[in-house]
Amino acid sequence: RSYTIAVLPGDGIGLEVMPPALRCLEAAAARFGFQLEFRSYPWASCTYYLEHGKMLPDDWKVHLQACDAIYFGAVGDPATVPDHVSLWGSILTFRREFDQYINLRPCRLIPGVTSPLANREGKPIDFVTVRENTEGEYSSIGGKIFEGTDRETVIQNTVFTRTGVDRVVRYAFELARRRPAKKLTSATKSNGISITMPYWDERVAEIGKEYPEVTVEKYHIDILCAHFVQRPHTFDVVVGSKLFGDILSDLGPACTGTIGIAPSANLNPSANRADRGKEWFPSLFEPVHGSAPDIAGKGIANPIGMIWAGQMMLDYLGEKDAAEAVMRAIESVLATAKDAQMQGGADLLTPDMRGKGTTEGLGSAIEKEIRG
Amino acid sequence: RSYTIAVLPGDGIGLEVMPPALRCLEAAAARFGFQLEFRSYPWASCTYYLEHGKMLPDDWKVHLQACDAIYFGAVGDPATVPDHVSLWGSILTFRREFDQYINLRPCRLIPGVTSPLANREGKPIDFVTVRENTEGEYSSIGGKIFEGTDRETVIQNTVFTRTGVDRVVRYAFELARRRPAKKLTSATKSNGISITMPYWDERVAEIGKEYPEVTVEKYHIDILCAHFVQRPHTFDVVVGSKLFGDILSDLGPACTGTIGIAPSANLNPSANRADRGKEWFPSLFEPVHGSAPDIAGKGIANPIGMIWAGQMMLDYLGEKDAAEAVMRAIESVLATAKDAQMQGGADLLTPDMRGKGTTEGLGSAIEKEIRG
Ligand SMILES: CC(C)[C@H](C(=O)O)[C@@H](O)C(=O)O
Ligand SMILES: CC(C)[C@H](C(=O)O)[C@@H](O)C(=O)O
Repeated sequence: RSYTIAVLPGDGIGLEVMPPALRCLEAAAARFGFQLEFRSYPWASCTYYLEHGKMLPDDWKVHLQACDAIYFGAVGDPATVPDHVSLWGSILTFRREFDQYINLRPCRLIPGVTSPLANREGKPIDFVTVRENTEGEYSSIGGKIFEGTDRETVIQNTVFTRTGVDRVVRYAFELARRRPAKKLTSATKSNGISITMPYWDERVAEIGKEYPEVTVEKYHIDILCAHFVQRPHTFDVVVGSKLFGDILSDLGPACTGTIGIAPSANLNPSANRADRGKEWFPSLFEPVHGSAPDIAGKGIANPIGMIWAGQMMLDYLGEKDAAEAVMRAIESVLATAKDAQMQGGADLLTPDMRGKGTTEGLGSAIEKEIRG
Repeated sequence: RSYTIAVLPGDGIGLEVMPPALRCLEAAAARFGFQLEFRSYPWASCTYYLEHGKMLPDDWKVHLQACDAIYFGAVGDPATVPDHVSLWGSILTFRREFDQYINLRPCRLIPGVTSPLANREGKPIDFVTVRENTEGEYSSIGGKIFEGTDRETVIQNTVFTRTGVDRVVRYAFELARRRPAKKLTSATKSNGISITMPYWDERVAEIGKEYPEVTVEKYHIDILCAHFVQRPHTFDVVVGSKLFGDILSDLGPACTGTIGIAPSANLNPSANRADRGKEWFPSLFEPVHGSAPDIAGKGIANPIGMIWAGQMMLDYLGEKDAAEAVMRAIESVLATAKDAQMQGGADLLTPDMRGKGTTEGLGSAIEKEIRG
């Protein structure tokens, strides 16, 4: 078995977490007997933008569509390029152009990582956010009128389509149905956002009829965020719009200890990798964290978000055993690292996990563990 | 001195927390020598809606404009009336019609209340959210096309005006300027919401030039929510849109222990209470929590959110000493209640504060403390 992976490290810590993550994937491939061909590209970065005046070359699609999957670091350098330019010129374009309509973001309390929440012992946290990934609040439709005057008015449309809402909600129900807790939480704000959000609620209720075995609950996003802090162990599958899913998938990992370990899969579940026509839309795997200009260049970024995203990619490619091994390696290194740190041994934990470790050190430990 | 207060208890626990809160305000008035005339109205409630088919009588404005301030409980009973109907028919109408463009929501870690966050000792949390309260994401403009078909599309506009953004941002800067930390955090999402949020950022940057003494920082709402969990003690004044302010002002109190104590002032700072024309727009004071149908009728709702909102109302009315006394009473009862609970004495703390207390018991203790 052989897979071609487009590698886009991007900016900032994206450039730092990518190398150890690639070594981890290589290690898994070696151990489980498959090949990974990495094709690295410098574009989808602010460095590229500053040189070329655009984030992507004209033929970017050809390059990416020639691959089985996209492995993406992080993009953005607000000191040189406004965020909406760099993001809309890269990751947000990929999600939309390849119709990666599911953004899957697991959130787990992993032993060895310290949660900022008190008394988490005996209450495992293990849920997944299913985020709508192509429409909603990130519509890019709208504009400004009476510019520069007191009447200046700026409007942006939130757009929900039946197709867009139904497919993500159905995906979330399917996922919930296959998990032991069989519970789906829908994020809404239909009491305040009076047109699009009641529609979202309606579709959740409608599609829910097809899944009588799944318990459905809905919460307004304000109180749902509060519940994430107060009782994160009670969630199973959480479905939300582009914006609400974004918020919840940063807040969840903050509650379980660090965004540095959180992964993100941008999936187009309708695209068939085995039988590609010219319509082949690859899926994309990335850490939840961004390019983090504040810590870039220091070699202290947590590589686990990137590695775990790679783990999701292996799973997606069908390499289940390899994916399993990578996950076990992450878990065992984290558990041991905590003990070593407490006994005054070598500290592998990066600063976001309250340690003094480095990207290189932690990445290598996981790589070694994968080799077995 | 005498003040006329419109009292709207609303639904659910609004009906339960209002009576003890009114007794607290009476106690403060008696002690500090002023009069409060309470005018109670049954409308702005789902009970009223079920009887009259509307949330408000036709002459609601006349009644409310005859008062110095509005004291509002909580509204909503989704089992009988859809939330967007009950909310848009009451609180959201008041905010917009009386142009209460500032929604002020203090968030403090009060000794005696247990935070779900570990290791908060020695790190006081004390910040205030300034929320835009009339425009933004709650626009009520938009609609549906191709209804009932696969092409069904639902659109809602987010609307920011120069006037609307500037006045709330300026208010936040003025507040920050007068606080010791002199720090303003702006909530944005300009990397994803590419039209309205970059405009918000622009206005914050522009108005910030008038306040060189204030340190300004901006964070995207996803990571800002994470920071609320990770380092809530570092915030001072936080400014956000209708939606972002809503989320942050529930998340903040969740981090400091309970939404049950959080107050909310809906202010029109341009309206002049001393010199009212027909343009007099009263301000409104309410707890942050909602009507909480799940615990309504049990007598266990925390009355402090309602009492603290009353404290903000006294402050607004110019009764600074009385306001001060109410705040001290809340603090001293909470501090003592915690000790009493730990020593196995009478438990005044309501269940949201991990106790077995009642609305009545806690409210009476605070009332007694105010009487001095
Ligand atoms: C009830 C709802 C419409 C309201 C809001 O979002 O404004 C509430 O959550 C609040 O925070 O006052
Ligand atoms: C960078 C930004 C546009 C992006 C998003 O909001 O989608 C990021 O926060 C994410 O969660 O992937």
